[in-house]
Amino acid sequence: MAGSTYGNLFKITTWGESHGKALGVIVDGIPAGLPLSEEDIQPYLDRRKPGQSAVSTPRKESDEVEILSGVFEGCTTGTSVSLIVRNTSQKSSDYSEIASCYRPGHADFTFDAKYGFRDYRGGGRSSGRETIGRVAAGAIAVKILEEMGITLTAYTKSIGPVSIDPARFDRKAILTTPTCMPDPEADRRAMAYLSECMKNKDSSGGVIECIVSGLPAGIGDPVFEKLDANLAKGIMSIGAVKAVEIGDGTLVSQTRGSQNNDAFVCTERKITKKTNHAGGILGGISDGTQLLLRAHVKPTPSIFSSQETVNKDFENIEIAIKGRHDPVIVPRAVVVVEAMTALTILDACMMNMTARMSYLIDFYRIE
Amino acid sequence: MAGSTYGNLFKITTWGESHGKALGVIVDGIPAGLPLSEEDIQPYLDRRKPGQSAVSTPRKESDEVEILSGVFEGCTTGTSVSLIVRNTSQKSSDYSEIASCYRPGHADFTFDAKYGFRDYRGGGRSSGRETIGRVAAGAIAVKILEEMGITLTAYTKSIGPVSIDPARFDRKAILTTPTCMPDPEADRRAMAYLSECMKNKDSSGGVIECIVSGLPAGIGDPVFEKLDANLAKGIMSIGAVKAVEIGDGTLVSQTRGSQNNDAFVCTERKITKKTNHAGGILGGISDGTQLLLRAHVKPTPSIFSSQETVNKDFENIEIAIKGRHDPVIVPRAVVVVEAMTALTILDACMMNMTARMSYLIDFYRIE
Amino acid sequence: MAGSTYGNLFKITTWGESHGKALGVIVDGIPAGLPLSEEDIQPYLDRRKPGQSAVSTPRKESDEVEILSGVFEGCTTGTSVSLIVRNTSQKSSDYSEIASCYRPGHADFTFDAKYGFRDYRGGGRSSGRETIGRVAAGAIAVKILEEMGITLTAYTKSIGPVSIDPARFDRKAILTTPTCMPDPEADRRAMAYLSECMKNKDSSGGVIECIVSGLPAGIGDPVFEKLDANLAKGIMSIGAVKAVEIGDGTLVSQTRGSQNNDAFVCTERKITKKTNHAGGILGGISDGTQLLLRAHVKPTPSIFSSQETVNKDFENIEIAIKGRHDPVIVPRAVVVVEAMTALTILDACMMNMTARMSYLIDFYRIE
Amino acid sequence: MAGSTYGNLFKITTWGESHGKALGVIVDGIPAGLPLSEEDIQPYLDRRKPGQSAVSTPRKESDEVEILSGVFEGCTTGTSVSLIVRNTSQKSSDYSEIASCYRPGHADFTFDAKYGFRDYRGGGRSSGRETIGRVAAGAIAVKILEEMGITLTAYTKSIGPVSIDPARFDRKAILTTPTCMPDPEADRRAMAYLSECMKNKDSSGGVIECIVSGLPAGIGDPVFEKLDANLAKGIMSIGAVKAVEIGDGTLVSQTRGSQNNDAFVCTERKITKKTNHAGGILGGISDGTQLLLRAHVKPTPSIFSSQETVNKDFENIEIAIKGRHDPVIVPRAVVVVEAMTALTILDACMMNMTARMSYLIDFYRIE
Repeated sequence: MAGSTYGNLFKITTWGESHGKALGVIVDGIPAGLPLSEEDIQPYLDRRKPGQSAVSTPRKESDEVEILSGVFEGCTTGTSVSLIVRNTSQKSSDYSEIASCYRPGHADFTFDAKYGFRDYRGGGRSSGRETIGRVAAGAIAVKILEEMGITLTAYTKSIGPVSIDPARFDRKAILTTPTCMPDPEADRRAMAYLSECMKNKDSSGGVIECIVSGLPAGIGDPVFEKLDANLAKGIMSIGAVKAVEIGDGTLVSQTRGSQNNDAFVCTERKITKKTNHAGGILGGISDGTQLLLRAHVKPTPSIFSSQETVNKDFENIEIAIKGRHDPVIVPRAVVVVEAMTALTILDACMMNMTARMSYLIDFYRIE
Repeated sequence: MAGSTYGNLFKITTWGESHGKALGVIVDGIPAGLPLSEEDIQPYLDRRKPGQSAVSTPRKESDEVEILSGVFEGCTTGTSVSLIVRNTSQKSSDYSEIASCYRPGHADFTFDAKYGFRDYRGGGRSSGRETIGRVAAGAIAVKILEEMGITLTAYTKSIGPVSIDPARFDRKAILTTPTCMPDPEADRRAMAYLSECMKNKDSSGGVIECIVSGLPAGIGDPVFEKLDANLAKGIMSIGAVKAVEIGDGTLVSQTRGSQNNDAFVCTERKITKKTNHAGGILGGISDGTQLLLRAHVKPTPSIFSSQETVNKDFENIEIAIKGRHDPVIVPRAVVVVEAMTALTILDACMMNMTARMSYLIDFYRIE
Repeated sequence: MAGSTYGNLFKITTWGESHGKALGVIVDGIPAGLPLSEEDIQPYLDRRKPGQSAVSTPRKESDEVEILSGVFEGCTTGTSVSLIVRNTSQKSSDYSEIASCYRPGHADFTFDAKYGFRDYRGGGRSSGRETIGRVAAGAIAVKILEEMGITLTAYTKSIGPVSIDPARFDRKAILTTPTCMPDPEADRRAMAYLSECMKNKDSSGGVIECIVSGLPAGIGDPVFEKLDANLAKGIMSIGAVKAVEIGDGTLVSQTRGSQNNDAFVCTERKITKKTNHAGGILGGISDGTQLLLRAHVKPTPSIFSSQETVNKDFENIEIAIKGRHDPVIVPRAVVVVEAMTALTILDACMMNMTARMSYLIDFYRIE
Repeated sequence: MAGSTYGNLFKITTWGESHGKALGVIVDGIPAGLPLSEEDIQPYLDRRKPGQSAVSTPRKESDEVEILSGVFEGCTTGTSVSLIVRNTSQKSSDYSEIASCYRPGHADFTFDAKYGFRDYRGGGRSSGRETIGRVAAGAIAVKILEEMGITLTAYTKSIGPVSIDPARFDRKAILTTPTCMPDPEADRRAMAYLSECMKNKDSSGGVIECIVSGLPAGIGDPVFEKLDANLAKGIMSIGAVKAVEIGDGTLVSQTRGSQNNDAFVCTERKITKKTNHAGGILGGISDGTQLLLRAHVKPTPSIFSSQETVNKDFENIEIAIKGRHDPVIVPRAVVVVEAMTALTILDACMMNMTARMSYLIDFYRIE
């Protein structure tokens, strides 16, 4: 099947492998008249780039984006925008060993099971580099949402046992700490934990949180196209994510209704809620308060300690993965979570524009 | 937008409100030649029916399904199957109070925000009765999957603080305990907990788990149509679900790679895994082991204790919800989780049939 | 595959067979706040009903529509609207002969080839009765378009060799002549031609034309979602249609550019065209002038004269079809063409609402 | 909206403008294991290239295709294939005049009406160069269909008043005559006619026919996803096409049932038809005989004679188009019709693989 397309009215289609010539994305459905250049997109790609800290693989990729279509005289034309990022730093020789064996925690085995063979260089299409297309497209979605008054903030909430302290929340730190934690103190402890992991030839999981502010009430649709349902799909489609929570998330299963219900309250004809256990979504539709979601990211499966596995000749073997690997995926995945959230929310906002007869009539009234 | 359709090749479209004339679903894409009658579907609807135990609303609904199209001489014809369940026991008068106010934890406010008004009778389209269409369609998906050798088992894993003990797992108990727990001992304790909740005019959340056995390796697609991504969407689209986990789920964020990776192992040219932290999915594609997911369900928002809220005249008021409400949604949602899992997996299996050139050539070779 | 769904934002899903219990349609994506009752829909179904004239089968069907969901207190709620029409006059015995043989010009053989068997009663899902769902949904689309200032006029342009004279165009006659011709004089000659066809146990083809007025410029999308491309699909999906033309249609292949180009002309800052060879669409996007399309409908395949064919035992046989059959499909298909045009145009209008950044910003600006 | 995507299981997404940096297409859903290189695709692009004859614009474009992803060790991997063709010969200065006026017969006005402005260089996204993506993707579809035993033949049937003589049909001539007519004699007369058109600063329309052989019975779906409906959409989505016919096409409206019905006939348990007025499709499903369709292409709108039109300042003006333009679009559009037919048919064949329960069970049976 054709699994590389995401979205309805704001639709992206990605392509590319870790060690192919390039990766990219077509973004279709961008409204005409948005000022757009590579400078709008590059900072988002830079946030997911490797080689930026002690806990990021030293592999150097410039990951420079180029706009190939859909922009004229500095503005989007309404037609499909093609973005490309060329691969420059692949060392295929690094990956020769994995051609014949199945790395635990990776998609090597399942790709072979599905397709009969696979592009084994750096994971091919299952590599984390696949997210380049998502992030590039997400940067455009973020820019449009900002014009609509909607802002997103994604950050690392925890790495292994180290969590941020909400009382110390410092938004600026997200872009400056190596862990992307909004709490320099937690960042220091997380870095120490990661050093220990690396020393033990091991890796760590973590949690990414994303907050959306300024989202109006009414976004999302009943039944199958609920906003939280689409967010769950978008976030779970990121490689290493194994759980998605909205608002209080897993906590709700242990609480009581009297604790979990958020009381509505009205001040000067503006309705809001006293608490936000729901994470800004009720019945699949945004309620006008802050939207909050969390992604649980598994530890990097590529670890340097010896592991049992199987090769293509059906032999039980041991492997010790070589090469360059982050001890934690989380910091580089923060911008991916932000991108998928932006793509999902923008699409839902567009979908919402035909929700009432009065919207159509106003839009098409004779001037 | 049109949010009532789910699936690609196996596609369902649902309709109906809590207190309308009827509810139903069109199931399109059923392969021709499946023996099908109402008897295949009714048992699944009976599992979600109210009024079956002390912890289920006493509202009596027969919820009898009727097949209106797509079946001829006892078999599916390959064309769209329309299923209808007539509403028989609605008491609209019960809901007159909620017409003008926004119940905490419900979709009353967000529906009004989106559409300008709402069918307030029993929640209208946002009612749990909306799941009738899902369950009826899911029963067909389950039947097809069984013919393919794939079986699903969904059950209540916990209610509030009470969890099942895997050592006592008794599959038969799922259909006989009022909580749908596969552990009569845990069931008794959960029922006691719920009694206490009811005494306190309160409600409880819980966790539903679903296991899929017999699923071959290779199901699901890379990037956006990952099997776990689509499962996350399907499960999160169920009304009260606030978190979805695959395999070890949220646990992965606190573990290390050496703990979380599942070693592959081969016996007589059959590759499997020593452990299953991944829950049967790697890189979004099934790995041939047991698929495992969990849904975290919030406490029933309709509680009988007094709650603060707002009415349509922007006044801050107090309400005490009347009527008939389950103190926990979980037991009746078990079959809904099973249905959404079956629908998602069947669709992914169908999608997989064009994954290799050899499949097409074998299928279309001249006989 | 699931071929019973049509449309993106205004999405319909139909079901039902000629001799099943009922037929119907789910219409999803209707904006909230449209006054709607069965009285809005029934007149459209009446236009396609059999038994209304000498050239229509005497089979009597009341074809009464019932709204089952999505309407509350007289208005659409924004959720899916389910419409049902019960079958009342099927005589299955009429069709016993065709169970075992393949009628020329019908889908009997192709359904068997695809599905292995078929519901042979009255053509099952391939019957013209399948269009009931389209017409019922189309009636809603027409009503919405009218609120937006867009009107549709479909009529019979020719039957066999008899064409209307544009100089005598009388819109009111469409609903009163048995042929649905807007020209009573042509109607009389067409009726005489059809009488002769019936005498010869034969049938006739014809042409349906549809005009859309009030459509603003800018509707439709470049490349694959061109307005004319989607209209071609919608119209060609009607059972007996074998050709679709836009504007001058097939004529363009024999003309020169200087004849076919429509000169633009401007009066008081309003741009229009001197001629309309293009039929109101340029580059797949409406140009603000009248949209014009034509459907070529084949003769009713059910004729009473003897025909060569084959049965399921691979024997060459002769059949003479019995029962009740219109000598021409065209008059009853006029409203189907109108419905498919309306559904397609409304969906394209909805799609157009996100074409420019200014639209989104105006829509979501803080009030 | 996002109109650049076509297909369901075999899905393409195109991008690029006439005078942008490049054009391209992502092809998603190619089964794994297809040997594929640029050499498979380039010949199809060469067939639509300009500058190949006296009736083709002398603009020279190499139109060299490069595969950027989805192929590993010479075979498709099952993941998305990205194809790019760089623009090399654009002279933007040629088009400066049209920036401010609306060329008759072009999409200049409608793009401005929709988006507020446009990329006016060479028509931007509405240029015929947009079809490069279709043709490149179509070449892959053709290759897959050939492996399945299905072959396509598209050719010029007529140019202006000059038609081919079926008695002289010579398939090889399609690739050698400048008109792509399979009849050198008609080709000569058509070339003479085009010379006269050019002398008169005028252009001509024409007809393209496409035949599909080897298509099994059973392809296509009832109701909205009929094979002919999807073909009509695919073909009408090609820029200059104004009518689409299947089989006898427009002729059916003037014939009688006894003439139009194709008698079934059986020889050695193989069912076929004595005639093929239906063009190989009954009830929207292929009947196992030759599929036949025709596209009516309008004359090139860019003509060198003076034309009335309007500019962006709402002034009525005269323009005489300069630059390089083919006097007829037809010969270069032949391969585009072939491509769209191949894409549509391959997708329908893939969709058909889940039509019967026995197909699923055979596919997923335990080996």
